[in-house]
Amino acid sequence: MEYRIEKDTLGEVKVPADKIWGAQTERSRNNFKIGNPASMPLEIVYGFAYLKKAAAYTNNELGVLSEEKRDLIAQVCDEILEGKHDDQFPLVIWQTGSGTQSNMNVNEVIANRAHILAGKKLGEGEKTLQPNDDVNKSQSSNDTFPTGMHIAAYKKVMEVTLPGVIKLRNTLKKKSDDFREVVKIGRTHLMDATPLTLGQEFSGYVSQLDHGIKALEHTLDHLSELALGGTAVGTGLNTPKGYAKLVADYIAKFTEQPFKTAENKFEALAAHDAIVESHGALKQLAVSLNKIANDIRLLASGPRSGIGEITIPANEPGSSIMPGKVNPTQCEALTMVCAQVVGNDMAIAVGGMQGQYELNVFKPVMATNFLHSAQLIGDACASFEEHCAAGIEPNHPRIKTMLENSLMLVTALNTKIGYYKAAEIANTAHQNGTTLREEAVNLGYVTPEEFDEWVKPEDMVGEM
Amino acid sequence: MEYRIEKDTLGEVKVPADKIWGAQTERSRNNFKIGNPASMPLEIVYGFAYLKKAAAYTNNELGVLSEEKRDLIAQVCDEILEGKHDDQFPLVIWQTGSGTQSNMNVNEVIANRAHILAGKKLGEGEKTLQPNDDVNKSQSSNDTFPTGMHIAAYKKVMEVTLPGVIKLRNTLKKKSDDFREVVKIGRTHLMDATPLTLGQEFSGYVSQLDHGIKALEHTLDHLSELALGGTAVGTGLNTPKGYAKLVADYIAKFTEQPFKTAENKFEALAAHDAIVESHGALKQLAVSLNKIANDIRLLASGPRSGIGEITIPANEPGSSIMPGKVNPTQCEALTMVCAQVVGNDMAIAVGGMQGQYELNVFKPVMATNFLHSAQLIGDACASFEEHCAAGIEPNHPRIKTMLENSLMLVTALNTKIGYYKAAEIANTAHQNGTTLREEAVNLGYVTPEEFDEWVKPEDMVGEM
Amino acid sequence: MEYRIEKDTLGEVKVPADKIWGAQTERSRNNFKIGNPASMPLEIVYGFAYLKKAAAYTNNELGVLSEEKRDLIAQVCDEILEGKHDDQFPLVIWQTGSGTQSNMNVNEVIANRAHILAGKKLGEGEKTLQPNDDVNKSQSSNDTFPTGMHIAAYKKVMEVTLPGVIKLRNTLKKKSDDFREVVKIGRTHLMDATPLTLGQEFSGYVSQLDHGIKALEHTLDHLSELALGGTAVGTGLNTPKGYAKLVADYIAKFTEQPFKTAENKFEALAAHDAIVESHGALKQLAVSLNKIANDIRLLASGPRSGIGEITIPANEPGSSIMPGKVNPTQCEALTMVCAQVVGNDMAIAVGGMQGQYELNVFKPVMATNFLHSAQLIGDACASFEEHCAAGIEPNHPRIKTMLENSLMLVTALNTKIGYYKAAEIANTAHQNGTTLREEAVNLGYVTPEEFDEWVKPEDMVGEM
Amino acid sequence: MEYRIEKDTLGEVKVPADKIWGAQTERSRNNFKIGNPASMPLEIVYGFAYLKKAAAYTNNELGVLSEEKRDLIAQVCDEILEGKHDDQFPLVIWQTGSGTQSNMNVNEVIANRAHILAGKKLGEGEKTLQPNDDVNKSQSSNDTFPTGMHIAAYKKVMEVTLPGVIKLRNTLKKKSDDFREVVKIGRTHLMDATPLTLGQEFSGYVSQLDHGIKALEHTLDHLSELALGGTAVGTGLNTPKGYAKLVADYIAKFTEQPFKTAENKFEALAAHDAIVESHGALKQLAVSLNKIANDIRLLASGPRSGIGEITIPANEPGSSIMPGKVNPTQCEALTMVCAQVVGNDMAIAVGGMQGQYELNVFKPVMATNFLHSAQLIGDACASFEEHCAAGIEPNHPRIKTMLENSLMLVTALNTKIGYYKAAEIANTAHQNGTTLREEAVNLGYVTPEEFDEWVKPEDMVGEM
Repeated sequence: MEYRIEKDTLGEVKVPADKIWGAQTERSRNNFKIGNPASMPLEIVYGFAYLKKAAAYTNNELGVLSEEKRDLIAQVCDEILEGKHDDQFPLVIWQTGSGTQSNMNVNEVIANRAHILAGKKLGEGEKTLQPNDDVNKSQSSNDTFPTGMHIAAYKKVMEVTLPGVIKLRNTLKKKSDDFREVVKIGRTHLMDATPLTLGQEFSGYVSQLDHGIKALEHTLDHLSELALGGTAVGTGLNTPKGYAKLVADYIAKFTEQPFKTAENKFEALAAHDAIVESHGALKQLAVSLNKIANDIRLLASGPRSGIGEITIPANEPGSSIMPGKVNPTQCEALTMVCAQVVGNDMAIAVGGMQGQYELNVFKPVMATNFLHSAQLIGDACASFEEHCAAGIEPNHPRIKTMLENSLMLVTALNTKIGYYKAAEIANTAHQNGTTLREEAVNLGYVTPEEFDEWVKPEDMVGEM
Repeated sequence: MEYRIEKDTLGEVKVPADKIWGAQTERSRNNFKIGNPASMPLEIVYGFAYLKKAAAYTNNELGVLSEEKRDLIAQVCDEILEGKHDDQFPLVIWQTGSGTQSNMNVNEVIANRAHILAGKKLGEGEKTLQPNDDVNKSQSSNDTFPTGMHIAAYKKVMEVTLPGVIKLRNTLKKKSDDFREVVKIGRTHLMDATPLTLGQEFSGYVSQLDHGIKALEHTLDHLSELALGGTAVGTGLNTPKGYAKLVADYIAKFTEQPFKTAENKFEALAAHDAIVESHGALKQLAVSLNKIANDIRLLASGPRSGIGEITIPANEPGSSIMPGKVNPTQCEALTMVCAQVVGNDMAIAVGGMQGQYELNVFKPVMATNFLHSAQLIGDACASFEEHCAAGIEPNHPRIKTMLENSLMLVTALNTKIGYYKAAEIANTAHQNGTTLREEAVNLGYVTPEEFDEWVKPEDMVGEM
Repeated sequence: MEYRIEKDTLGEVKVPADKIWGAQTERSRNNFKIGNPASMPLEIVYGFAYLKKAAAYTNNELGVLSEEKRDLIAQVCDEILEGKHDDQFPLVIWQTGSGTQSNMNVNEVIANRAHILAGKKLGEGEKTLQPNDDVNKSQSSNDTFPTGMHIAAYKKVMEVTLPGVIKLRNTLKKKSDDFREVVKIGRTHLMDATPLTLGQEFSGYVSQLDHGIKALEHTLDHLSELALGGTAVGTGLNTPKGYAKLVADYIAKFTEQPFKTAENKFEALAAHDAIVESHGALKQLAVSLNKIANDIRLLASGPRSGIGEITIPANEPGSSIMPGKVNPTQCEALTMVCAQVVGNDMAIAVGGMQGQYELNVFKPVMATNFLHSAQLIGDACASFEEHCAAGIEPNHPRIKTMLENSLMLVTALNTKIGYYKAAEIANTAHQNGTTLREEAVNLGYVTPEEFDEWVKPEDMVGEM
Repeated sequence: MEYRIEKDTLGEVKVPADKIWGAQTERSRNNFKIGNPASMPLEIVYGFAYLKKAAAYTNNELGVLSEEKRDLIAQVCDEILEGKHDDQFPLVIWQTGSGTQSNMNVNEVIANRAHILAGKKLGEGEKTLQPNDDVNKSQSSNDTFPTGMHIAAYKKVMEVTLPGVIKLRNTLKKKSDDFREVVKIGRTHLMDATPLTLGQEFSGYVSQLDHGIKALEHTLDHLSELALGGTAVGTGLNTPKGYAKLVADYIAKFTEQPFKTAENKFEALAAHDAIVESHGALKQLAVSLNKIANDIRLLASGPRSGIGEITIPANEPGSSIMPGKVNPTQCEALTMVCAQVVGNDMAIAVGGMQGQYELNVFKPVMATNFLHSAQLIGDACASFEEHCAAGIEPNHPRIKTMLENSLMLVTALNTKIGYYKAAEIANTAHQNGTTLREEAVNLGYVTPEEFDEWVKPEDMVGEM
């Protein structure tokens, strides 16, 4: 392979000739052979592109960077955001915990690409831009990485997570409305209970997601705070006056999201509680979705020896050995995502707990787990909506049979004859394999007419 | 031991003569010998007392319970809330997952105690109150237990958690103000970095807690929603019209907290995402507090061979073998609490995920873990505040020495001579064990006068 | 309240006159008002009693403690182990992370009680035993607390956890044998699948527990290693030659368990991976038990609108509002325990990760979570065995109906006519609501005789 | 894009013409757009290749598959194992929870590639091999996926995890030996304590890893059990007699690892406790490694205002803004890995708990998290060993200064003058900022000669 020589403060490094990254990226590639290459999420690289461009504009506006350099930096950042340099970011999550090397990777790519854009050849001539002095001007890894991760996280929540969850929520709402008059048996402790409508059952899912969406939205304010301007330890050393606020404004403008400068930069470097907080809401959604998806597969179970009160779409052959089998695969994908998100929540907590002094050095692992969860929840909700929820239909005959069999309709008699006599009716019917009506009359507690008047499933479901 | 006979729908049960609980409580005691007896938190029993009283008032107001019965129920509930019957609730957390038996324990104690208050003897005469038909009127375990746990959880957060955290936050804020001019070395990656003030360092802790408090407050609205009125499956079967809203109003009145009826009762029985959500905020606080407490013990480490930049109170002899040793014991208690809270968060998530159909049957374990965390965080913050944070003082000579030694003051030269020459100065001083000033001048990059003007720690800390 | 004055190296402290603890215990009581009082598990106190007695014997045998002092110490330790001083250990888990104050609590109680046994009055006369110099001789909190917690943990596993799990395992094995010829429908993805016997289904549970028991036993060797003899930092400073091995022998003798001295004392103080390791096995059991208990409640669900293939004992009325309802309460208690154990595992991991230098200061929280889990699993298995598993019976008519309905019996035809034609049969029968036999013949793929010969559920279950 | 038509039991599907996968793979690609494409680990695909080849050999040997088909299947499996078809496995983790579609992906690729090897054109002519009837003969997704994941997991542990951990363990052992006479101050509670040697400190790390390696090895027996032969529900339906044992022998032969058939196939499909168990050991290693890596960065902190007792290699410039800074980046990468592994452990537990009836449908998420952890721990240990541990050196002057300053050397006087007088000496020296020797003599407790004889750090470290 062909190489060129790049330098940093520790000396010379050989870099593959066809790559535009520099010395520090190459060192990192060699020093951290842990897991798959290029595992650092591209979303974070793009977050860096936004902030490097914003920093260039701010530095120029505040008089510490020339217009020419600003425009070169901005041009490369735009190229990065267009996906033109995706293969220039080979680093892994498992590097320095401040993400210094990914910051330098971006700095080096911008500087080198600008060199080329300026018509020069890599490794030759005076450097058009210095990675540290120009591209990284008024910045430190310690404030850029958390800024990049907040940009990436916020955008992912807005662009993937919330749309996916809302899409599913709306379809479940529609189903809840469609099923509002389908009276069915309720089940508590997995055991037959008093009736409700299928629409009511689904309304609980909608309410769970409504609460989850609200919880996630509550966390966005914290997540919108940007560390940039804190530089090395939070004091803003080497930034021009007014920098922090202005650079946040530029980021807000470029991303079209309401980012703002963090009120306290010391926290913003040393702790990532905003990531913990927002991921807590993702975990809450995972808890809700696990319940919903599990319910739906229980309700759809069968087709003959399960519950079978609803049908779900048959998207693929279910079994490689059992012919004709259809499985609730979307429920399974979704509940697996929930398991992952709950695990990711713990990884984030463990990382968040272990900041020391002026810096938390679990940034890449926290950011990656966050982005992973946010993507999975959004995607899995959308997939579940399209390939499962939208196709849910009641199995009316089954629902009717199960409802009519239920011994728990006896509960309607509590207010007429008291809990204890009602229990006697139910127990007797259960032992004899008979109906409530038969035993209620046999025991002499009600007349047949009273029974028919008092025990009506459709009157037991409240306001539908 | 002497016994009396109590009955339920399954038959007769012997109950210790000196206890006023009934058949179902006794069955549960015998059927669930798991862990310590009486592990069900009293806070939940008290939550039940509030709601039983509120239900009695509501039932009376809506015409389904006599005034006499209402007043008897209310009188016993008040006795329970005064702690007079704490020994009448012997059940464990590890019972039915709807908490049915704890609901019945309360119903039975109220009914039997009312019998005594009515001047009768237990086990004799017509029952003054029926546990199911009167005390439990318009209720089910399925809506009372979640109501009781929301009452208990909300009150604990308001009365213990938030006051404790706020107390600590305020003391840290005072320290931050007091230390605003104490310039000290910063540390990132545990390594010497550019300076900041001790006040700035502490301001990060304050900001973490401010965000945590805000996050916890965000969750209170969800937690204020009460399931009561949903009865068995959420439909409100066997409740009089208007019951749900009115009973929540009474609970709000009796507890003096802004409780309200849950908009969707199906969710309120089948999922406990409000517990998941609020505990997520407790976990966030645990993450923050772990960082803060660990920092403080690092800063206080020594006394001679550690960092030693601050001193903390010596509250007890630190070692049973090493004479004269003093340890950061409050930090240790607090970080142990944090570990517990993170674990509790997972127990709650696992419980929350596994609701099925119309009921989540992990209520007691979720409620208990919540109350455990909420109490521990509140108590531990108060203890840490009183016995540690309030007594933190800077060790000025140590801070000064460490600041002056730092090689990272060289960062101030970046904007004057560039990152690469600055690095050369620092590296040379490190290798030679000399000062930055010496090497900066030796290398010819700055004059002594320039160095003295440009490298001033007190100018490197931004706005204090 | 009446007090007497006790002293330690920090000065005088008032102690309630009726208590025999000393100055450091009292300081800790006042300094750590976190959660319930006396939360430090008594099992750990008893572990201390064993080790203090063993240390006294060893110190005497190695010539550094008089026989008289040895016997006094041993006498009090025996009293503690008989439960006579349970109210003398008021401290909480949330104290110094080395458990120093609980060590001193034991030292002080032994010294003061010995003073009384020697016929003197507390606070008067020369001290019969010095807490630090005599009772704590050749010891440090840093090696006693981990020794006490290993003793407590090991004993709990041997005396509660394993017996409980084995009891349940044996009952499930018996059920598996009893049910070996009960052919039933299998279910995968909750959907109807090919048949198996109920005995086979239960054999899977037995196998899970067998693996779990083995996994737990694998960890016992590590857990049997004792830190005692390491003293302050692992070097064994201030212990007589031969002490570590001999004291472990005495502990093994007194506890009748195969304890041994840890090969590496530095690890034994600074890390508690043995607790992490053994609790990992408890978590594995929790994972297994959750699956088993959930299966059993699914199989028992109904009675009319669920699966209902088995019946479980009705131990208590299931509902406060629905008369005659019976619920799988033991399954619920057990799965709640599983949720707790999974959470505890995380608390232990978080504690275990954060040791620093020569000491891990999360000892009390790690030990408490361990003991909590070990007790709960043992108790819950025993409870589940007695009140649920032992009473499980097949519901033969239900099992037969469900088996005969199954479309997945078609799988038996794969090897005769191929997967694709078999799928066509199943799909047609599903759409038409007919039987496999009808459609198989209609489609012309098999003759009625072939169908009857090839599709026999009892031939599809392999070796039973 | 060009397509060809593929069929399955649900009908026709368009597949990209340049791909050799079939209908079910294509359906899955379209139905599960969740997260990154092709996220199903290739290691599992390779596990499938081993087992498909073994099944072909077994089927042939037992007379149910022709030699020609066996050889075609084996040939494609070998190609897959050589990495020639890596781009033919586009599916994601988040599919059906049994991994059915990945099983079918392998079946389809083998069948279609065999068609090409047989000289035919895809989509034309009679199928050379049927994916279900030939390639999947005597198999089900339900037993192949867990077999594939056990193969992948076992191999990863043997080939990556254990070698990495052992390499690090050996280097730490060498360091421990090299540093055996370097007497230094000990630290407990982060505070100065009695001395030990640097070699002793490192010996604790070695012991942790020794225990972790042993714990991981203990789990291998369970992990070596293979589900294959259980087919759909564990009964082995549609397998020839003797199949299960023989196919495991072939897998053992082809993989050169001691795999064996699972004794109980019902467990092997319905629960994945072996994954839970082995990952428990990975989590234990993560707990240990976090402690070790954190210690090393604490010991190496500075260079001037930290502890600085050891030096670690400077692998890259540490800061983008602070010139000359060097950071403990390998420690950071390793501790981030530990956070991830702890999170993965929870994802696996959550998945493992939720099996239902005859199948656990969290297989892909459990397998992926396992492989992720096993790879990361192995890689991170190797990286840490090479780029950090191997280069650790003591900073002798610093160690000497810190040792001599320590007040805790006074502990050596306990056995001479008692704990209380020793404490007085230490406290006085601390208050006065003087030496122990001065105050010991001033207070009249020892003569200078006694002090010098009794207080020798090198005598306080026990057997080195």
